[in-house]
Amino acid sequence: MSYTRVKKVALIGGTHGNELIGVYLIKKFKNDLSLTQRDSFETITLLGNHKAIKAGKLYIDTDLNRCFKPKDLVNNELTDYEQLLAKKQKKYLIEQESVDMIFDIHTTTSDMGTTLIIHDNNPFLLQLVAYLCHLYPSIKVLQYNNSQPCQLRSIAKIGLAIEVGPIPQGVLKADIFQKTEALIMQIFDYIQNYNTQQLSNIPKSLTLYKQTGVIDYPRDENNEIKAMIFPTLKDYEPLQPNDPIFIDFNGDIIKYQGNSTVWPVFINEAAYVEKGIAMSLTKKEKVTV
Amino acid sequence: MSYTRVKKVALIGGTHGNELIGVYLIKKFKNDLSLTQRDSFETITLLGNHKAIKAGKLYIDTDLNRCFKPKDLVNNELTDYEQLLAKKQKKYLIEQESVDMIFDIHTTTSDMGTTLIIHDNNPFLLQLVAYLCHLYPSIKVLQYNNSQPCQLRSIAKIGLAIEVGPIPQGVLKADIFQKTEALIMQIFDYIQNYNTQQLSNIPKSLTLYKQTGVIDYPRDENNEIKAMIFPTLKDYEPLQPNDPIFIDFNGDIIKYQGNSTVWPVFINEAAYVEKGIAMSLTKKEKVTV
Repeated sequence: MSYTRVKKVALIGGTHGNELIGVYLIKKFKNDLSLTQRDSFETITLLGNHKAIKAGKLYIDTDLNRCFKPKDLVNNELTDYEQLLAKKQKKYLIEQESVDMIFDIHTTTSDMGTTLIIHDNNPFLLQLVAYLCHLYPSIKVLQYNNSQPCQLRSIAKIGLAIEVGPIPQGVLKADIFQKTEALIMQIFDYIQNYNTQQLSNIPKSLTLYKQTGVIDYPRDENNEIKAMIFPTLKDYEPLQPNDPIFIDFNGDIIKYQGNSTVWPVFINEAAYVEKGIAMSLTKKEKVTV
Repeated sequence: MSYTRVKKVALIGGTHGNELIGVYLIKKFKNDLSLTQRDSFETITLLGNHKAIKAGKLYIDTDLNRCFKPKDLVNNELTDYEQLLAKKQKKYLIEQESVDMIFDIHTTTSDMGTTLIIHDNNPFLLQLVAYLCHLYPSIKVLQYNNSQPCQLRSIAKIGLAIEVGPIPQGVLKADIFQKTEALIMQIFDYIQNYNTQQLSNIPKSLTLYKQTGVIDYPRDENNEIKAMIFPTLKDYEPLQPNDPIFIDFNGDIIKYQGNSTVWPVFINEAAYVEKGIAMSLTKKEKVTV
């Protein structure tokens, strides 16, 4: 991997206003700058969506974390609150501050533990997440198929979502708060060691869950959900063709109709119901980093 | 207990629009009236807050389930959406339909399992909940100290909240859906057997968790939450004086300052953060029914 020193990173929480772990971590980091300070690079901490945080809502008008499509950022006709906020954040983080990396803290209602979400095969990022998986073997890495990036983290050269759970929207849990803080400290120490060429123990391989698609809930002619996720379905556990995937309100089982094994994630994520997503499907792959 | 036949009951879900178990149970019951039909009494099924359900929110303007104070129901100056809706529901359920009982299905983000919430010592209700606890030993009964009733269920002579969880707001889980449906079927069978004087196996005693007060999160001078609930705290488990109750963002422990053992409930309920409630405190008592 060619070496380019990291100069500035942004750490963001509250991009979704009701995901409280990130909100309170950023508040803590803003109160004590030494926590995110390292000698070899600068850090910006940012609350993503103040107005949604104050309202205790995911968003005010529309999901901020879908407002960063390059074409939308230059479309002056898009004037929802979050569409304007996205333009402002792009200007601040990239044009003004030139951050190299964005780390965006999210929470999920799904029982996924800690997931690191990446978009591409950036070698720095693959090595970073491989290192974190080595430190914390329960961490999973999800790679989005992101031909059309739209997330806040996608505006920087390197973007990582730190997705922690399971936790309901609007709830703060001490154990998850502390685990997430420790993970972030490891990320910052890693960048410091990278910059000062003191990295060691970087694993050579990594298990990726690569997103292949999404599945909606079965719906009736009025677009009403007509079945629930089958209760034994688990994030990151294989789902085989003909395995139960949904169960309707009368107890009738609906089976998975795919042709090959998939590994579902974001099962029962509250924020995805309105997006028509019951779960994302992934394939599990070991890659060399 | 003097015998008065039950003539009409109302079963309600979606009083809070993002508590989906009740919403989808009521939709199911409306699609198949036979499920809630019994020979000896009439049943009305009702979605509590259509507009909030459609918006996927707890409420539109204000919490519907706090809008039923007798003085508010006759105050024509209260014109928030839910304040108007409360007046309409009182008129429909009580003045027009004369329901004897209201069963209101709620969900909680707290790890409370199934809780039946009562307001008073109505003998019919105490016997009903004692019977249900006998059938399902994991069920807990919470008695609110309700000198100023304000909930939808409080407008009927007999009101019961069926509170199920843990489940995030905006999420539908099949196992909880099915458990809640089975419980409601038992309630309807019980009323049928009561009306036809065929009740048997009613236990003589019952464990009540009587609400004694609420505790807010520790807050700073700007009213910002400055500590989280201590991670080992569990709903319905005793909390002793000097036990850890909160932990701040730096890991410092805050101890419970009360003088006697309490049993906390509604720990980490998302809907209560805005109400300044970190948890409710109860005392555990065995009562004769």
